[in-house]
Amino acid sequence: MPSTVSIDELTDIVSRILVRHGVRLDNAAPVAETVVAAERDGAASHGLLRLPGYVTTLRSGWIDGNATPVVVDAAPGLIATDAANGFAQPALRASAPLLRDKARSQGIAALAIRDSHHFAAVWPDIEPFAVDGFIALAVVNGRRRMVVWDGKRKVFGTNPMGFACPRPGRLPLVWDQASSVMAQGEILLAAQHGEELPAGVALDAEGNPTTDPNATLDGGSVLPFGGHKGSSIAFMVEMLAAALTGANFGYEDRSGEYPGAQTSRAGQTVILIDPARLPGNRFFERIESLFAAIADSGVSRLPAERRYAQRDRSLRDGIALSDRQAASLQELLQA
Amino acid sequence: MPSTVSIDELTDIVSRILVRHGVRLDNAAPVAETVVAAERDGAASHGLLRLPGYVTTLRSGWIDGNATPVVVDAAPGLIATDAANGFAQPALRASAPLLRDKARSQGIAALAIRDSHHFAAVWPDIEPFAVDGFIALAVVNGRRRMVVWDGKRKVFGTNPMGFACPRPGRLPLVWDQASSVMAQGEILLAAQHGEELPAGVALDAEGNPTTDPNATLDGGSVLPFGGHKGSSIAFMVEMLAAALTGANFGYEDRSGEYPGAQTSRAGQTVILIDPARLPGNRFFERIESLFAAIADSGVSRLPAERRYAQRDRSLRDGIALSDRQAASLQELLQA
Repeated sequence: MPSTVSIDELTDIVSRILVRHGVRLDNAAPVAETVVAAERDGAASHGLLRLPGYVTTLRSGWIDGNATPVVVDAAPGLIATDAANGFAQPALRASAPLLRDKARSQGIAALAIRDSHHFAAVWPDIEPFAVDGFIALAVVNGRRRMVVWDGKRKVFGTNPMGFACPRPGRLPLVWDQASSVMAQGEILLAAQHGEELPAGVALDAEGNPTTDPNATLDGGSVLPFGGHKGSSIAFMVEMLAAALTGANFGYEDRSGEYPGAQTSRAGQTVILIDPARLPGNRFFERIESLFAAIADSGVSRLPAERRYAQRDRSLRDGIALSDRQAASLQELLQA
Repeated sequence: MPSTVSIDELTDIVSRILVRHGVRLDNAAPVAETVVAAERDGAASHGLLRLPGYVTTLRSGWIDGNATPVVVDAAPGLIATDAANGFAQPALRASAPLLRDKARSQGIAALAIRDSHHFAAVWPDIEPFAVDGFIALAVVNGRRRMVVWDGKRKVFGTNPMGFACPRPGRLPLVWDQASSVMAQGEILLAAQHGEELPAGVALDAEGNPTTDPNATLDGGSVLPFGGHKGSSIAFMVEMLAAALTGANFGYEDRSGEYPGAQTSRAGQTVILIDPARLPGNRFFERIESLFAAIADSGVSRLPAERRYAQRDRSLRDGIALSDRQAASLQELLQA
């Protein structure tokens, strides 16, 4: 394994690992691209770090790497895609051309994906639509980890939401955030390092506040960000990603029956709007004025700009693999 | 002025006050209904308390009470409505039948309102759509009061967002929340009472944290809820409510040139989705299972349930007016 790889080389390696563990090649490609996009952009939490989780999930039988998504043209502005217990990314890829066509012709369109496993960041799903000139909103629900505000026991997943806005001649403004105050990965890290959690982050199994990461992981739950307001956002995500699509709710999760399973069998909704279809908004001109006003207000960078800077470096220099990363990739290729 | 009034009586009184201060009758009705809906539901901050602000705004010349909204059928899924410097509610009312038709036929549709003044809660805008079976999402931008996360000076309004989900045989699940950690009204109250603000709520004019409500009101700003995550939500609201519609951004506000003006001349977007158009989601059956699971998790009530309980009491007993409220209404009727 070389110590520095190009993006294409790394995508090929990750794809081969997924294929080796039971994913059909055409399903592996979009998943591998998502993992590598995160690594390329310095978003380590959703990059190569996740690969062992993909592999143990595939081995557990919890997900079908050979699933063929079924895309249904449900209404002039709606697509219903059944991921058939496969990864979310191949389902999105199979639906994207029709979603683009609908958003272009109708002005707004939504894609509702059910029975899908999403184990990646949300921004790689929406950035390409914004590059094509669409405003894109995506929500993904997940297995239960989080209480509804005022609750004692977990019901919702950490329910991420992503938003992308096109910019003329530049990469889009994109944000992507969990509805929980802290990511599951950070709680796992605190437990590994024997560190306390900050107050206001987690509850134990009895629904009492705790700063012990192990109490949180052992039947406890994480709190929504911003109190009841973040809980409201998580509610909307659950409605759009699961109720609308017909996917499992977070509390219906059965991954515990598949030891090693780390993904959620849940749902995802993507909404596209074509801002060019609304007369007189001078959209692309005006948003640049807004971004200038934001910079003037003392904000040092917009969401995603740090990722884009790291992306430039990766495109120029390749992606450096640590000895540990290289060894892990080698092991997963041969396991 | 009687000490207890029916909802219809109070709507008539509020409508007459608006008409007396220059609002055309057909524009006054939907605004009055919104004010009375808040009072009826015990949402005092958006009820009769706001009437003096409506009146001073009308007197200032900042808003046109006689505006006629112009509804443009922009695309199969999009409506562009110009509120023509009038209230947002008449513009929404003028657009609602077409919006319903589009959402029913296309499965999803959006209404983009520009050049509108929204001085009310968001939930009265979306509840009726959810009663008709639509999932409804609404965002409203406003004049600058809030920093973007990491910023020193205000750029965005408190940018509320509302979400409504239909329920079979019941009033909808509805939430409505500002993107700021604290409402402007609460900061005004703290200043009046000489109280400190909690930490983490506000910045002074130099962009430094402050707990002095006067420093906040005097050129300072309020912080988004939940840190950078609430700021991201506010960003999305600004994009959808202002950039998409062609309305003023928060930082473009000129209300200061109209002494007494309290409303924002800004924009609003409403998105409707018809969940019945997606095959196999068993939407109405499944959301009730979710609500049962939420109750089981120890949550005592869903968003809006407190308002609905107060609404039942108001519908049964009428709305009791305090001496002060009755005197204020009398004064505004005759002023």
